[in-house]
Amino acid sequence: MTDDARFMRAALALGRRGLGRVSPNPAVGCIIVKDGRILGRGITQEGGRPHAETEALRQAGPEAYGATVYVTLEPCSNYGRTPPCAAALVAAGVARVVIGCGDPDPRVNGKGIAWLREAGLDVVVGCLQEEALFDHLGLYRRIRDRRPMISLKIAASQDGQIAAANGSSRWITGKEARAFGHLLRASHDAVMIGSGTLLADDPDLTCRLPGMTESASLRIVLDRRFRAGLDRSLTASASPTKPVVLITSETGLKRAALLGERPGLQIAALPDETSLTDMLAWLADRGLTRLLVEGGATLSTALLRDNLVDRIYWFTAPLLMGGDARPAIGDLELAAPADAPRWRAIDHRSLGDDHLTVFAQRLDTKAQTCLPVS
Amino acid sequence: MTDDARFMRAALALGRRGLGRVSPNPAVGCIIVKDGRILGRGITQEGGRPHAETEALRQAGPEAYGATVYVTLEPCSNYGRTPPCAAALVAAGVARVVIGCGDPDPRVNGKGIAWLREAGLDVVVGCLQEEALFDHLGLYRRIRDRRPMISLKIAASQDGQIAAANGSSRWITGKEARAFGHLLRASHDAVMIGSGTLLADDPDLTCRLPGMTESASLRIVLDRRFRAGLDRSLTASASPTKPVVLITSETGLKRAALLGERPGLQIAALPDETSLTDMLAWLADRGLTRLLVEGGATLSTALLRDNLVDRIYWFTAPLLMGGDARPAIGDLELAAPADAPRWRAIDHRSLGDDHLTVFAQRLDTKAQTCLPVS
Repeated sequence: MTDDARFMRAALALGRRGLGRVSPNPAVGCIIVKDGRILGRGITQEGGRPHAETEALRQAGPEAYGATVYVTLEPCSNYGRTPPCAAALVAAGVARVVIGCGDPDPRVNGKGIAWLREAGLDVVVGCLQEEALFDHLGLYRRIRDRRPMISLKIAASQDGQIAAANGSSRWITGKEARAFGHLLRASHDAVMIGSGTLLADDPDLTCRLPGMTESASLRIVLDRRFRAGLDRSLTASASPTKPVVLITSETGLKRAALLGERPGLQIAALPDETSLTDMLAWLADRGLTRLLVEGGATLSTALLRDNLVDRIYWFTAPLLMGGDARPAIGDLELAAPADAPRWRAIDHRSLGDDHLTVFAQRLDTKAQTCLPVS
Repeated sequence: MTDDARFMRAALALGRRGLGRVSPNPAVGCIIVKDGRILGRGITQEGGRPHAETEALRQAGPEAYGATVYVTLEPCSNYGRTPPCAAALVAAGVARVVIGCGDPDPRVNGKGIAWLREAGLDVVVGCLQEEALFDHLGLYRRIRDRRPMISLKIAASQDGQIAAANGSSRWITGKEARAFGHLLRASHDAVMIGSGTLLADDPDLTCRLPGMTESASLRIVLDRRFRAGLDRSLTASASPTKPVVLITSETGLKRAALLGERPGLQIAALPDETSLTDMLAWLADRGLTRLLVEGGATLSTALLRDNLVDRIYWFTAPLLMGGDARPAIGDLELAAPADAPRWRAIDHRSLGDDHLTVFAQRLDTKAQTCLPVS
């Protein structure tokens, strides 16, 4: 691995700390290096400001002059709440900027790179680009596809069942797998379930890992018909710091309206015939970049059928539940195995007695649209 | 790892080469060592003779005097077609014998160990015992439980389906996984399918790996009602060197009798109400120690329900087939996940795009009966 790749890997690892905490902004990592020494590190801060570059420059101080900057995403070029990072890098006198991938935001989209090049800096674009695109997929999905990146979490028996025939599902996986599931919640902007899961399991959907209980992602319930009502622990636990959004339909809202308001609980009514795609666009417009869907089978299957799933975190427990139990995935109406989209297993790990496989979409034509702008 | 464990591991690896080739005998490995130098190696030969110890002693010659012998299974003490190995070890003047696990065969069952000790040799029993018992499980099952050890092979989508709703199953897994499946065939004494799989897939069940096409395991079809008939490639491919056994019932036999005899094809009729356990006892009495069951769901599920499965080789392909496809396992009628027996994942490996998990039964009370005799 070259030095550039080594430092970029460190910047990527740094940037990932912000995943799930900085939306609608991307979770960027930045490292400033001179003569092999790291002078400054920065990540996008909660609320989106300061940007990673600003923080790294602040740490480096005057030493940034002549240094190389490793940044996972193209520096911004637009005047927003803060001056553009491209300007700050030029002002600090850095000599070289190594960039993971371009920023698809139309306010930037190559203009940051152009700014740096026009100022005479040496700019490298696409260092560990695949990893950078992987980390910034939420940004790309929101900007280019007007939806959040979607991760599906499944906890199933080896034969693919998520509950016994009577609905009993506690517990299929063990505590290590469940703890990893809490980490996933923390690294996504929001966690979503369908009304069936609310009715059957009424999960808490918070991250309950020690020291991370404040890593509250937005909790979302999709309940078009408002059949779960509000009398659930999940909805009752809504508070201004741990909000819950209940997405229903205009018809469903008529029932909800009777129940009055609760602090931290937002009831959103979309038109009755709103498609899944339009619902996701609505979430993207509200700034969501990374959405973790934790079931149930109805919602997961609908997302899969519409090819809207980017990643699957599939936890497998070493037991067999049988074909009469409840399958993780609903009907897909396939005529042959060859008709099923093939996924790419990008990670395997053992978690206690269980096994986690992480799947990503294969790099197909659609994913190619996520290439950087420059 | 101690030297003893290191040499025993080598002996175990050697012995495993015989798996699937030496039934009804156990596949034993033996290594003779003096001053850290390996003087002889032996494995049970095809047909069961010579035994591993005999072959290793032959290689070592007079140098065996004062040496240490590593043998995966207790040396035999009975006069069969050849003199007992215990006698041969004593006659060769070896100083020390390190044994993996005891031999449950009532003709041996501790007598081999006693013979060596009475002759003044230093005998260690239970070196890497768990691994030795694992390798010799077929022997233990045949002698103690009067059935072959049973391995189940499943090739399924990530969500646990083995075919589309219309039965189409070619191909779920890729060529690497299928090649590994052929290796499994070679390491078992026999491969068995149910009539449903014969009707749907008519598999060849041979090992078609280069250089291993002669590693013919016995091919067995369980077709109680004789509904698949004999007009199949599998049955037609029966020959004296690649035999097929079709197990049917006395009622089924009435249909079979019309079709005359074919060389290499044996039709066995068991009483109509023969249980799965009795059928397996019948196979064990015919010398089978290791049986690979390749489906379908009906046979696999019946074996699982009766707790007759020792290992599961579960190949997972990175695709989702949906709940309307055909599940790998049939109805198990579980009320809750906690009622499902938990398996122990003992190996994970990637095979091309697919993943293999090997499961063994958890060490429960039943498995404890597999402890060595001394």
